[in-house]
Amino acid sequence: MQKIKTAVVGASGYTGMELLRLLLMHPYAELNCVTSRQYAGQALDAIFPRFAQMPGSDLQFTAPDAQTIKESGAEIAFLALPHGVAAEYASALLELGLKVIDLSADFRLNDPAVYEEFYGTPHPATELLTEAVYGMPELQGRSKEIADARLVASPGCYPTSIILPLVPLLEKGLIDPQSIVTCSMSGVSGAGKTSNTLFSYCEANESVRAYSVPKHRHLSEIEQELSIAAGEKVTMSFTPHLVPAHNGICTTTSAMLKGSPSEVTQALHEAYNSQTFVRLLGKGNAADTKNVTRTNFIDIGWAVDERTGRVLLFSSEDNLGKGAAGQAIQSFNLIAGLAPQSGLQNV
Amino acid sequence: MQKIKTAVVGASGYTGMELLRLLLMHPYAELNCVTSRQYAGQALDAIFPRFAQMPGSDLQFTAPDAQTIKESGAEIAFLALPHGVAAEYASALLELGLKVIDLSADFRLNDPAVYEEFYGTPHPATELLTEAVYGMPELQGRSKEIADARLVASPGCYPTSIILPLVPLLEKGLIDPQSIVTCSMSGVSGAGKTSNTLFSYCEANESVRAYSVPKHRHLSEIEQELSIAAGEKVTMSFTPHLVPAHNGICTTTSAMLKGSPSEVTQALHEAYNSQTFVRLLGKGNAADTKNVTRTNFIDIGWAVDERTGRVLLFSSEDNLGKGAAGQAIQSFNLIAGLAPQSGLQNV
Amino acid sequence: MQKIKTAVVGASGYTGMELLRLLLMHPYAELNCVTSRQYAGQALDAIFPRFAQMPGSDLQFTAPDAQTIKESGAEIAFLALPHGVAAEYASALLELGLKVIDLSADFRLNDPAVYEEFYGTPHPATELLTEAVYGMPELQGRSKEIADARLVASPGCYPTSIILPLVPLLEKGLIDPQSIVTCSMSGVSGAGKTSNTLFSYCEANESVRAYSVPKHRHLSEIEQELSIAAGEKVTMSFTPHLVPAHNGICTTTSAMLKGSPSEVTQALHEAYNSQTFVRLLGKGNAADTKNVTRTNFIDIGWAVDERTGRVLLFSSEDNLGKGAAGQAIQSFNLIAGLAPQSGLQNV
Amino acid sequence: MQKIKTAVVGASGYTGMELLRLLLMHPYAELNCVTSRQYAGQALDAIFPRFAQMPGSDLQFTAPDAQTIKESGAEIAFLALPHGVAAEYASALLELGLKVIDLSADFRLNDPAVYEEFYGTPHPATELLTEAVYGMPELQGRSKEIADARLVASPGCYPTSIILPLVPLLEKGLIDPQSIVTCSMSGVSGAGKTSNTLFSYCEANESVRAYSVPKHRHLSEIEQELSIAAGEKVTMSFTPHLVPAHNGICTTTSAMLKGSPSEVTQALHEAYNSQTFVRLLGKGNAADTKNVTRTNFIDIGWAVDERTGRVLLFSSEDNLGKGAAGQAIQSFNLIAGLAPQSGLQNV
Repeated sequence: MQKIKTAVVGASGYTGMELLRLLLMHPYAELNCVTSRQYAGQALDAIFPRFAQMPGSDLQFTAPDAQTIKESGAEIAFLALPHGVAAEYASALLELGLKVIDLSADFRLNDPAVYEEFYGTPHPATELLTEAVYGMPELQGRSKEIADARLVASPGCYPTSIILPLVPLLEKGLIDPQSIVTCSMSGVSGAGKTSNTLFSYCEANESVRAYSVPKHRHLSEIEQELSIAAGEKVTMSFTPHLVPAHNGICTTTSAMLKGSPSEVTQALHEAYNSQTFVRLLGKGNAADTKNVTRTNFIDIGWAVDERTGRVLLFSSEDNLGKGAAGQAIQSFNLIAGLAPQSGLQNV
Repeated sequence: MQKIKTAVVGASGYTGMELLRLLLMHPYAELNCVTSRQYAGQALDAIFPRFAQMPGSDLQFTAPDAQTIKESGAEIAFLALPHGVAAEYASALLELGLKVIDLSADFRLNDPAVYEEFYGTPHPATELLTEAVYGMPELQGRSKEIADARLVASPGCYPTSIILPLVPLLEKGLIDPQSIVTCSMSGVSGAGKTSNTLFSYCEANESVRAYSVPKHRHLSEIEQELSIAAGEKVTMSFTPHLVPAHNGICTTTSAMLKGSPSEVTQALHEAYNSQTFVRLLGKGNAADTKNVTRTNFIDIGWAVDERTGRVLLFSSEDNLGKGAAGQAIQSFNLIAGLAPQSGLQNV
Repeated sequence: MQKIKTAVVGASGYTGMELLRLLLMHPYAELNCVTSRQYAGQALDAIFPRFAQMPGSDLQFTAPDAQTIKESGAEIAFLALPHGVAAEYASALLELGLKVIDLSADFRLNDPAVYEEFYGTPHPATELLTEAVYGMPELQGRSKEIADARLVASPGCYPTSIILPLVPLLEKGLIDPQSIVTCSMSGVSGAGKTSNTLFSYCEANESVRAYSVPKHRHLSEIEQELSIAAGEKVTMSFTPHLVPAHNGICTTTSAMLKGSPSEVTQALHEAYNSQTFVRLLGKGNAADTKNVTRTNFIDIGWAVDERTGRVLLFSSEDNLGKGAAGQAIQSFNLIAGLAPQSGLQNV
Repeated sequence: MQKIKTAVVGASGYTGMELLRLLLMHPYAELNCVTSRQYAGQALDAIFPRFAQMPGSDLQFTAPDAQTIKESGAEIAFLALPHGVAAEYASALLELGLKVIDLSADFRLNDPAVYEEFYGTPHPATELLTEAVYGMPELQGRSKEIADARLVASPGCYPTSIILPLVPLLEKGLIDPQSIVTCSMSGVSGAGKTSNTLFSYCEANESVRAYSVPKHRHLSEIEQELSIAAGEKVTMSFTPHLVPAHNGICTTTSAMLKGSPSEVTQALHEAYNSQTFVRLLGKGNAADTKNVTRTNFIDIGWAVDERTGRVLLFSSEDNLGKGAAGQAIQSFNLIAGLAPQSGLQNV
């Protein structure tokens, strides 16, 4: 089988590194171009010694230039760039005939006003918003849309862990959409590859704390997708926390239950029984990040608190995997016509 | 100044070890008796090499026997025993004229029926429930009661981190008492010194997960104290999580705000400005466990989420410190007529 | 291509789990039988939730019985059993016509007297010692022997990290064989999946210490292989340490240099340039465990200390990977006639 | 008792922070001046929230100016500054009549040529070298010299852990001084409070590696003190490693044994039995960093390897405590005429 030619634009951070890892191991993907302003001219394995002696790891970083990317032969480009910058490259690459899977926030929001509210600047490429598909393949009908898309907006890490457990319950009207309260705990890689002293070993180890309260940027895409599922505008409480782990997100969500406990179980099974990467842990079971790190799985458990009338949803995923690079590879597989699990069955 | 003679009953676990640590450093406490069925006959510093060459660390463990404890000269006994067992020793030691600070759950609940509901057995010593004082000195009027008590029920770790931020708001009617949702994250020492493989390094490291859902035992004492503050029966949602840290609890609580943001700030300042061990971080600031580990401080921050109308309360403490042994020493200081900060100003 | 049918005997510990992980991802291996006295009758993914929804993970554990293993159709059996027990199963399975890759110490030592000295009991199956091959494929001529073997003794974790850097230097007479001093640091998974409180999170975290001094069991196989390379009996100093990491071994070895610095570099390059899983970092570079965890790579760097005349060798590997399960899969690939890298190019 | 007035110059890093911690808890020290170019004008507890509500923590940082320090009333100044800069402040403060305890390398070496060899620049204040005392109070006769000194050069972290176990053996001629090989493992705080990405949580966690090979700067002071003890020039092999811990140094040293095992035991006991902060663990016992973190203790164990004829020395200390700030406080106590354990009995 012919391999699909790919580029990773902005490959120097942790999301970029995870994309490289997955593409180097992918049986049907070829890595034709990796860009990094900082590392241009250096070999991939000089920057990421973990990848040395893997086939393909001798590729050289180039400066991020749309024409260069095109000339590498790449058919599909992954963008692991900051928001704002990503939109710029997306436009240029689409223009040149590539398909684009963008891991930034630039094309996740349908409404440019919401983008401006949460990201503080006018949307950089509103003309592309209509065709961009929010790349969460487990949502109903979504995998078909992704397969046909030129531009995929790959979801954020927190949103993935929050949206997937809630959507089936909202769609069936089993919870009160205005009663949702979520706490998430993320490993430190969620802060990116940074020189900020706050994320140094000695500051982040033995440290647990909430941050970005009360209005984290990811609320924008979470509420967008939940509102679609609920058929009404959803506003929710979301508090992210940083915990001393390398990767993994553990999310606990609760909402007032309107249906019965068995309807919750049934809705989740109906939605996800046939999904390769969603693992339902059953009622009474919480999810543990250690079972999903470095995989593309999201584990979902649930419980009903009869004392308060709330249903509790527990989910765990790798923030860099299912929450970022892995989910982007799912979109890649769909676009390329590959089996959903291609290159993603790593545990 | 004459030192107060003390005993630690059940000194082999992490709470017992923290009590020993604080008592060995306490300028006005003397350690006269430490008991451990497992370690009887061995020297304290053979079991806890960290304490070797500290004055007092050559004391020998004895088997836990009330008469032996009495004969050591101890005036005040700390019980770091499992619930059920603690009540037994409390009765015997009170009988012999000692004062007792119990760190188990045995005397925390006013209502024996609630004890039976949450702990699964009939209360072992109902006759002592009336005189036991819930030992949280920062609650209004409580420090006087503790000073006069023969029997103090020292609070649980999660309850301390949840009750202290909420009580001032409930007392002033600033939040809806039925809307409280709490997520807590605890370091692994909260599971005790255990041989359970679940808490081995390789299982607990890089692992974040909820547990004891949806009805953790600590809910009983949390709801009891919140109900007193609210003047009505409070039922709340509480989800504890285990995170890869040695110690520390980070708690995030939210509730529907009925008052104004400035009333929240004012209520917290009024309640705690003069409290030695409560540090108010101000509006918009979350609490970080790394600032409180191995101290007796609890840090409290807060925020108002205007989108959902919820107030967010952030607290951090050391689960073994302010959440257990440190708070017990506060009671000790009160009973012994010492300054509140005696032996507790360790950072 | 037909898949090779395999069994993992004793699959409940960390080495067994890593074997399962590698076999579940291996393109040409089929997992036909997994045994565990403790988990017999339960599904593999119930015990290892990380593997759930991976093809093959619904296999049931059986009790460890040679006949049952044979009847599963398995052609090659991996033994992840304690020493002593492993020899018993090896004999029975060889008898039944299977090939055996044993990850215990039972067949690593040529001399049963050395086995008895280091393991404290007479060797359980001396008749098999002659045909057993020490399964370190990177040693000269060894891969051919492994390919032809019925019984492979897969090396220990520390030995792998120590032997590989030293052998080329000893073979060329570049160092004094009696001057070798080695310090190794291992992650906690090296202690196995254990309920020993010593390896609980709270005891192992923030703890660095030497252990098994001065005569760790692995010295027996290390000195055996070094003696072969040196052509004389080698006795060395080896101190293992436990450090707070999940996996990975970092080894620093020094010895008096007899040759020149450039001869060291040349010897290492000659020995390993064509080896898929040995990565030479070059002179002046130390090895970092973070680049090799969950891979089958061993990284080797070196330096010359002109002040003391010692050459320093730095190596890193995953104790469960190249140091155990990964290296066993290398032997499997050789026996099965597969490409060396089959199923092992995971980063 | 009158408190001694102190200043901490360069108080923004981890060593400075540990000095502040110890001085805030010290019963006979007063903190009169803290300097930091970066934080001048801010309160100590705004920068170090851990210290908030400790008496003395409301002090403001000032810019580092000798005259200002003098005017604060400080009698003794601790310098936690980079080498080179420290010498400058030492000269100025001595001139103004203060006593100086310098934690940098500036006054540790008797020979300015060695300073230049290891630190790459000419010594900045050779005129002060004669009177500076290397502040390791456990060395014979040293505590008297420190008590009388105007200028103390407080030792480095690795040197403390290496020199203390070796000196008694070298003084008695029990080991071959030219056969010493040392491996040390340090927690990440040894790298200082830094924004270098190399020491970020995600890079330092699950990472074990040697560094600064083969000639770490600390070799200069180690070899100086060992040479004095041996009565001959000692050259040794030293390899430091970074391990994923916050603090603590674990050191394993070996050397060819010339005396008997019992002479080793006797020499160590003679040297250290009466020392408050040296804890001898006995023959056959290794030292564990977890017992010494946040204390001023150094734990020393030993073993004899009869196979190789080497004696093994195991030591553990807190790199920021006994290895830096704690040891500096020992000098402070000596200069101020206080009991050795004053302010240092924290576990």
